Amino acid sequence: MGSTFGRTFRVTTFGESHGPALGVVIDGCPPGLAIAETDLAVDLARRRPGQSLLASQRKEDDAPRILSGVHEGKTTGTPIAVVIENTDARPQDYDEIADKYRPSHADFTYDAKYGARDPRGGGRASARETAARVAAGAIARKLLRERVGVEVVAWVDRVATIEAKVAPSSVQQSEVERTPVRCPDSDAARKMEAAIEAARKDGDSLGGVVACVARGVPPGWGEPVFDKLEADLAKALLSLPAAKGFESGDGFAGTLLKGSEHNDPFEPGPEKGSVRAPTNRAGGILGGISTGEPVFVRVGFKPTATIRKPQKTVDREGNPTELAAKGRHDPCVLPRAVPIVEAMVLLVLADHWLRHEAQCGPQARGVARPSGDARL
Amino acid sequence: MGSTFGRTFRVTTFGESHGPALGVVIDGCPPGLAIAETDLAVDLARRRPGQSLLASQRKEDDAPRILSGVHEGKTTGTPIAVVIENTDARPQDYDEIADKYRPSHADFTYDAKYGARDPRGGGRASARETAARVAAGAIARKLLRERVGVEVVAWVDRVATIEAKVAPSSVQQSEVERTPVRCPDSDAARKMEAAIEAARKDGDSLGGVVACVARGVPPGWGEPVFDKLEADLAKALLSLPAAKGFESGDGFAGTLLKGSEHNDPFEPGPEKGSVRAPTNRAGGILGGISTGEPVFVRVGFKPTATIRKPQKTVDREGNPTELAAKGRHDPCVLPRAVPIVEAMVLLVLADHWLRHEAQCGPQARGVARPSGDARL
Amino acid sequence: MGSTFGRTFRVTTFGESHGPALGVVIDGCPPGLAIAETDLAVDLARRRPGQSLLASQRKEDDAPRILSGVHEGKTTGTPIAVVIENTDARPQDYDEIADKYRPSHADFTYDAKYGARDPRGGGRASARETAARVAAGAIARKLLRERVGVEVVAWVDRVATIEAKVAPSSVQQSEVERTPVRCPDSDAARKMEAAIEAARKDGDSLGGVVACVARGVPPGWGEPVFDKLEADLAKALLSLPAAKGFESGDGFAGTLLKGSEHNDPFEPGPEKGSVRAPTNRAGGILGGISTGEPVFVRVGFKPTATIRKPQKTVDREGNPTELAAKGRHDPCVLPRAVPIVEAMVLLVLADHWLRHEAQCGPQARGVARPSGDARL
Amino acid sequence: MGSTFGRTFRVTTFGESHGPALGVVIDGCPPGLAIAETDLAVDLARRRPGQSLLASQRKEDDAPRILSGVHEGKTTGTPIAVVIENTDARPQDYDEIADKYRPSHADFTYDAKYGARDPRGGGRASARETAARVAAGAIARKLLRERVGVEVVAWVDRVATIEAKVAPSSVQQSEVERTPVRCPDSDAARKMEAAIEAARKDGDSLGGVVACVARGVPPGWGEPVFDKLEADLAKALLSLPAAKGFESGDGFAGTLLKGSEHNDPFEPGPEKGSVRAPTNRAGGILGGISTGEPVFVRVGFKPTATIRKPQKTVDREGNPTELAAKGRHDPCVLPRAVPIVEAMVLLVLADHWLRHEAQCGPQARGVARPSGDARL
Repeated sequence: MGSTFGRTFRVTTFGESHGPALGVVIDGCPPGLAIAETDLAVDLARRRPGQSLLASQRKEDDAPRILSGVHEGKTTGTPIAVVIENTDARPQDYDEIADKYRPSHADFTYDAKYGARDPRGGGRASARETAARVAAGAIARKLLRERVGVEVVAWVDRVATIEAKVAPSSVQQSEVERTPVRCPDSDAARKMEAAIEAARKDGDSLGGVVACVARGVPPGWGEPVFDKLEADLAKALLSLPAAKGFESGDGFAGTLLKGSEHNDPFEPGPEKGSVRAPTNRAGGILGGISTGEPVFVRVGFKPTATIRKPQKTVDREGNPTELAAKGRHDPCVLPRAVPIVEAMVLLVLADHWLRHEAQCGPQARGVARPSGDARL
Repeated sequence: MGSTFGRTFRVTTFGESHGPALGVVIDGCPPGLAIAETDLAVDLARRRPGQSLLASQRKEDDAPRILSGVHEGKTTGTPIAVVIENTDARPQDYDEIADKYRPSHADFTYDAKYGARDPRGGGRASARETAARVAAGAIARKLLRERVGVEVVAWVDRVATIEAKVAPSSVQQSEVERTPVRCPDSDAARKMEAAIEAARKDGDSLGGVVACVARGVPPGWGEPVFDKLEADLAKALLSLPAAKGFESGDGFAGTLLKGSEHNDPFEPGPEKGSVRAPTNRAGGILGGISTGEPVFVRVGFKPTATIRKPQKTVDREGNPTELAAKGRHDPCVLPRAVPIVEAMVLLVLADHWLRHEAQCGPQARGVARPSGDARL
Repeated sequence: MGSTFGRTFRVTTFGESHGPALGVVIDGCPPGLAIAETDLAVDLARRRPGQSLLASQRKEDDAPRILSGVHEGKTTGTPIAVVIENTDARPQDYDEIADKYRPSHADFTYDAKYGARDPRGGGRASARETAARVAAGAIARKLLRERVGVEVVAWVDRVATIEAKVAPSSVQQSEVERTPVRCPDSDAARKMEAAIEAARKDGDSLGGVVACVARGVPPGWGEPVFDKLEADLAKALLSLPAAKGFESGDGFAGTLLKGSEHNDPFEPGPEKGSVRAPTNRAGGILGGISTGEPVFVRVGFKPTATIRKPQKTVDREGNPTELAAKGRHDPCVLPRAVPIVEAMVLLVLADHWLRHEAQCGPQARGVARPSGDARL
Repeated sequence: MGSTFGRTFRVTTFGESHGPALGVVIDGCPPGLAIAETDLAVDLARRRPGQSLLASQRKEDDAPRILSGVHEGKTTGTPIAVVIENTDARPQDYDEIADKYRPSHADFTYDAKYGARDPRGGGRASARETAARVAAGAIARKLLRERVGVEVVAWVDRVATIEAKVAPSSVQQSEVERTPVRCPDSDAARKMEAAIEAARKDGDSLGGVVACVARGVPPGWGEPVFDKLEADLAKALLSLPAAKGFESGDGFAGTLLKGSEHNDPFEPGPEKGSVRAPTNRAGGILGGISTGEPVFVRVGFKPTATIRKPQKTVDREGNPTELAAKGRHDPCVLPRAVPIVEAMVLLVLADHWLRHEAQCGPQARGVARPSGDARL
């Protein structure tokens, strides 16, 4: 009962890893936005496995089909449904896990919660589910870019102990996409690739950190006290498979500083009366509301739970047993997580933009005529 | 428009730092729970400032008044409203900040969002608002303890670079409360107190980490894919003032491990057919659902934004100026954040317990008679 | 778990008839609206009992106290809490009903649902709860009047078989308030008063219909397919105590017509390109969205359940017994229901206005600059 | 932004009349329920047009495809997506209405709200959208029947002035399905059919009333004060195309009675301690909570807006013009509305059942062990 995200830009996903199809319904997208299936396909292709030896070799076409909400190439304001068929399902690969609980996977907890589960490929708990999020995120991306001028870029910031040096204020998606590991620091990228390849050969896996910046977010987005921008970003990103940590701005590193070191002085901005805080240790958010500086967050992903090394576990009856993964698996989810992290940040921003407009837009404040009149 | 938290155990807070009163409405609490104002007062006293030189010297009685939802000492199932009057408001202390934006505070962003704000003591953005959360958390604590057997304990795990050694599986609230800094490791506590006192004398401030464990959570709580238990814990804790980071289980440290090091092997539990994963690097959650192991999370708090050292900033017109805090302030919010972190964890757990019951309780699964009949 | 109404203009009420206080939290009200306690007092006075012999003689001061969300006389955008103390509670009047289920009251169903209840004055099920709705409605009224130009007027349209003749397109609140029965048709009003007085003397009660019009609603409000304007109006009005029926436009009478008689022809409006449908049998709503014509609804209220005539019933153990009401009661709730119906219609309209702005406001459609910039 | 219904049994629909497909996602369905596409097909067949001359001649196969949430024939607790392809779309029939606003249709209001619309067959505003509701309702029906023993039956209670005589306490679906007009009173049914046929020949249309009963609902369902059972039923039913009125129990007729005539005396029920109120003028609901008596509601539908008679209207530029419908249309929607009304009542009941379990189920009340343990 938790497959809906957002309040005004609302996203509802469905689908299991090896069921007939997965998909998403987006309710609340403003009308008049030009959207085609090819817009979604770009981000879906970035998420897709099988792009290099660094990732799982499952072949997915991930051809999105828009079933509603778009007429003559533009959104109509009604719910947009997108369906992606599962074409390369090989359920037989997963016979063993129907009876054995894979360590650090959700097999046991789904059984504990629901009394049963679809074991094929992890069912609903599979990262395959994130394809639906990416499709929705692609729509949010276009909306925010065209109507507000927001740009969201994520990258692999760390694999195991290998850290990248990246400037959030200027990094471009094209730099990120230059390497299969999706790290714009090419030295670090080379080391990351080697580390991932070594882990793959060893039948093991690696974790790390994905960073993400949103530039062009105007001041004022975020809904205190519970739906602060940081709070909803944290929720969005911790809802991703394998995510175990979240930071905004200087995050945990900032907790080592003194107030006099950490505080961002305000200074006059370029336009008359505007305000800047360019040191931006806050990560673009104060009091849960955007400051106008780039919004910056980081997500920690645990090492992939699926490994080829044999592990101890129990079966569904609770008897001790052993398990070693077969099938297609990512030795490191980080590169493929990049477009997924972007998608979640985009969904949060689209929702908060529209929520902000509802209460604090010019008409709500009484500085414009009712919109209903405007049309006539 | 973000002052409600939770879906089935729903909490709505209101109130500004120096307005007439603040409070909370809790909707969805099961009936028949014995609750008195004194139950709330215990946790409120722990949150209250002025308990030691480590904290702000504002004197707040924080006497909670229950206005509804309790009859003859027991909850009736209707909304429980709790109001706490603001008795020691000294708005004159805050005249200066009506015109100057305090660095790393929400003054600027509230103005940017709403066009105006209540500047007294930070208004709605003040940490005073968390008193309402603590009052609600006290009700959730009693509910979860009596009906499920859940125990939630938080503590100061790190101040600046001073780290405590604490065993989440056994730490008791009595150990936490033994020191004013609320750290159960007495060696670390002594060093933390000295560091906070030094910062206070220096007109500066410190940050750090609060850790929290929930023991007795049964397997099965959490609502994938968006309302995973970790996701809602992250949201709850990042909605706290000054929170900038969240981890569950091994968190960011775990991202440095290999899969073969990080995975928690399952083993048979003490009762026939039960399952345990005692290494619990997952922090009691897999796939967003509780495993039955202790739920363990950590929250990073930035150093207190208010410092007595002079800082550069701008006024409401965007002109450069300088500011040095007067009034009552905490050089380190961590000790007082302990009951607040507990409150948020308790609110998440209460909500997820009831959500789980709705879909997967014995009656929903068809293994019990309809509850309506049961009464007659 | 159902004490919150609305999605963007969100209202949460609390309080029992004879508890310490009742109240409401309004979250999502736009900032900058001038609001004082006296604004609320006007509508609360209209709702208050004891205004004439036609209504219950309970004396309630109903002095609303605003606890938050208003600074220097204007809303700040943060939650507005309003509390009304219960000053004339006489719980002893209600000893008998603690043990006996009053026919057509909620005593039995609250016991069946929650296992217990606050029996004093009906507890949460008392119509006293609607005072909180009226306080919130007064804020919505001011918001919609000043920012959009919407005017909402309700009146008693029928008592038992006595029907009024009223023109929804022009009726004014001042005409409604001219008679104690709140019927602007003075002939009908006189007959209604006589009928109510006769019922009162007879220890009996009467039902009827309240009608309500909203003028000035622009085209475009309403959120198909589930949150149609009519659907939310129906929910709002059926949530009132004693409400048993709802109609919009020609309602049930319209179901007797043929399509050729019922359809409203469109015609050119006064401004270039504008559209009117002045026959307005639709009641200002088509496809769940406002047309720009007056929104018109009617609510049927059953006769007051509390009567002085002796009635058969059972006690809490299910044994047959008899009951005759004592204490203060309305022989007809209709006159006091008028401001309550207005309040619910206002809450629906405020919510739908802001929801419409979120998705279809000028900025969401891309015809204006981001609001965040506008301020700087 | 209003295509989701329910809070715990949550239904999200999508799709336009002549788009590629329509469908629904059901989130929150308890696990372990046996569901097959054929279960949905039964009710979809009842809704389908072209069953007789009384209804539109559009041919729709309405073959539902379940994409997720069901594994080995049983629900898994994850979202259930159902898609129905649009196979007999004839958009060319609708060229004219792209430019002319059909009277009493939503063409104008969708344009006013969204700035554009999908004109083919009414787009999202078409009654075709209700197929998705019926598919969801079929799942709710099976859930409530098997787990609680609830039975929901609707029928045509009135067409224009022709009223049926039907006993809500005993009427069976088989009796309803016996006639094409879906009226279990065969005398009335014959007259209704004649009237509808006459209207069809005349190029005109008729309205009327559908009644619906839910038997087997235990006492205790409904969430005061806003989410009362009646309030949510009213919302659900007024969200249907062409619905203009709602009543529960004696409804508007009951408002003509005196309290002494309308009140339902309580009496001892068949089991020890149980309570009945068999006169049931309340329609099975008191104070917004079910009493255990049959829940009884009525919905008024206006005459079909689409008629072959020529009508005055305007085009999109606001110029006067004339319009006469071509294509396939129902002269009376009532017979096909029967399964749709049932679906909405079922969705409300499923949602309220689970909401009741969340707060007041045996475990929430503390009379059972935590469900998480139960499994292990």
